[in-house]
Amino acid sequence: MYRVGIDLGGTNIAAGVVRDDGVIMCKDSVPTQRERTYREIIKDMATLTMEVVKKSGVGIENIKSIGVGSPGTPDCKDGVIVYNNNLNFRNVPIRAIMQEYIDLPVYVDNDANCAALAESVAGAAKGTGSSVTITLGTGIGSGIIIDGKAYSGFNCAGAELGHTVIIYDGEQCTCGRKGCWEVYASATALIRQTKRAAEQNPDSAINSLVEGDMSKIDAKTAFDAAKMGDQIGQNVVNQYIRYIGEGIINVINIFMPEVLVIGGGVCKEGEFLLKPLRDIVKEGVYSKEEIPQTQIKTAQMGNDAGIVGAAMLQI
Amino acid sequence: MYRVGIDLGGTNIAAGVVRDDGVIMCKDSVPTQRERTYREIIKDMATLTMEVVKKSGVGIENIKSIGVGSPGTPDCKDGVIVYNNNLNFRNVPIRAIMQEYIDLPVYVDNDANCAALAESVAGAAKGTGSSVTITLGTGIGSGIIIDGKAYSGFNCAGAELGHTVIIYDGEQCTCGRKGCWEVYASATALIRQTKRAAEQNPDSAINSLVEGDMSKIDAKTAFDAAKMGDQIGQNVVNQYIRYIGEGIINVINIFMPEVLVIGGGVCKEGEFLLKPLRDIVKEGVYSKEEIPQTQIKTAQMGNDAGIVGAAMLQI
Repeated sequence: MYRVGIDLGGTNIAAGVVRDDGVIMCKDSVPTQRERTYREIIKDMATLTMEVVKKSGVGIENIKSIGVGSPGTPDCKDGVIVYNNNLNFRNVPIRAIMQEYIDLPVYVDNDANCAALAESVAGAAKGTGSSVTITLGTGIGSGIIIDGKAYSGFNCAGAELGHTVIIYDGEQCTCGRKGCWEVYASATALIRQTKRAAEQNPDSAINSLVEGDMSKIDAKTAFDAAKMGDQIGQNVVNQYIRYIGEGIINVINIFMPEVLVIGGGVCKEGEFLLKPLRDIVKEGVYSKEEIPQTQIKTAQMGNDAGIVGAAMLQI
Repeated sequence: MYRVGIDLGGTNIAAGVVRDDGVIMCKDSVPTQRERTYREIIKDMATLTMEVVKKSGVGIENIKSIGVGSPGTPDCKDGVIVYNNNLNFRNVPIRAIMQEYIDLPVYVDNDANCAALAESVAGAAKGTGSSVTITLGTGIGSGIIIDGKAYSGFNCAGAELGHTVIIYDGEQCTCGRKGCWEVYASATALIRQTKRAAEQNPDSAINSLVEGDMSKIDAKTAFDAAKMGDQIGQNVVNQYIRYIGEGIINVINIFMPEVLVIGGGVCKEGEFLLKPLRDIVKEGVYSKEEIPQTQIKTAQMGNDAGIVGAAMLQI
């Protein structure tokens, strides 16, 4: 059987016909044009669905369900997006409107849960029952897979691993709390930490890499400086990896997933990131007995994660 | 149907015949005598099981399974306790040995998971699918219930909520890390915090309550001083409740359980603890939209939690 996965983003709506094993048979996308009403956006989602199904040659009778991954707070039970600022969604009944156009089960969840589901079905955590996927981006996205399903609590609003305090009374987080993991371990945090180090150490390679223009510092700069042998860059990288590590140890002590998947641009650093991270985690996890331990891997699904994960949604 | 629950402790082995709704029909206990070999201890567990079944009048043919709650790291799949220091257990095959005496399914898990399961089936979280039970004692015990079952990861070694760092590079924890929640929010932590405050403030009511004998300070002392209007005692209490609160907000942001259950002696403080705690949590949780929120309740199962929770274990 096949399912349709829809990745609703602020810029594009992408949809694909996905085989049970997570292979995309056919996909396409249209601009979201988010200034429109939600009815118009959802109508486009339905149209795009019919088009990719047609193009795939699979036949609508072989499509089991449609899944929609959206940013925001979902009400998975009713197939609603309760709240999303970016799309200006308030209690948008995605399932109900989609079903005005297509008579199929429609499941709705947020994009972080879809990303985790995609890794679980076809990516870095393939073949496991339990995994946690952490995406280090603007913030920290996170999805928890238990028994093959995305877990986010009785109201679908959990799985906010980025909003767990690791530094009591630490730096201000956008969520209102102080010291959340996201404030220290997101890509945004790394850029902030790199800028601070560059300002305090004008002679560091960080400064020369960006020719003194702090606005050019990105999440790669400190890693690049460190690889050039720059101690300031190395210090930033070491500290950043420790912040990631402390949060990951917390996650492992809680969930003991078979695989912990890390996504986001920083994963391109490969073993330069993973080797020290694995050492920190091995040293810190609570259970050091002779039992199997969580494996740490980098995300594999890339841009297809949204479509594949959404397709795999089910009650 | 009925099940037998066995609460294996360092001092006593307690066993009971438990009805499906969590009511204990009959229970009894014998001393553990933990210096004995595990074979002798498990033989006593089997004997005690047969005795309580007989006394209950239920009839062995109506017993569906036997559950064993033990301290330590369990291998739930194989019914083994991998490691427990207190009982000096290393890879003890509880299921296999129990089944030499009694031909019934035998399930093994740790005591914190059993306590959570008991609250879920018959206590403060009765009627919910998801709950988390936190016990503030010598350390912080924790059990996670998802879809009515105890969740502790693929190797049964997770659910260690007390060993999540909330203060990066904070006070030393027994687990090797620094700044774990347990170091700030356990009863042991409260006693330590109360002693420090008393030492720094010799005129506080804390000192007069214990007649200057610091060894008499317990987890009630600061609360008692606060209730007498003592500012030092009140400060200790306020700070302690904030530590509990920060950890609980973390747990809620992750799990969004229907109910979060707090156990341990400190719960006797009732609303004096719960009112400020609920305010802190309400202020701090990530999802403040108009969606149902986690309820915070105190544990109800008391000493029966071990027996009832163990009885409810299943694959």
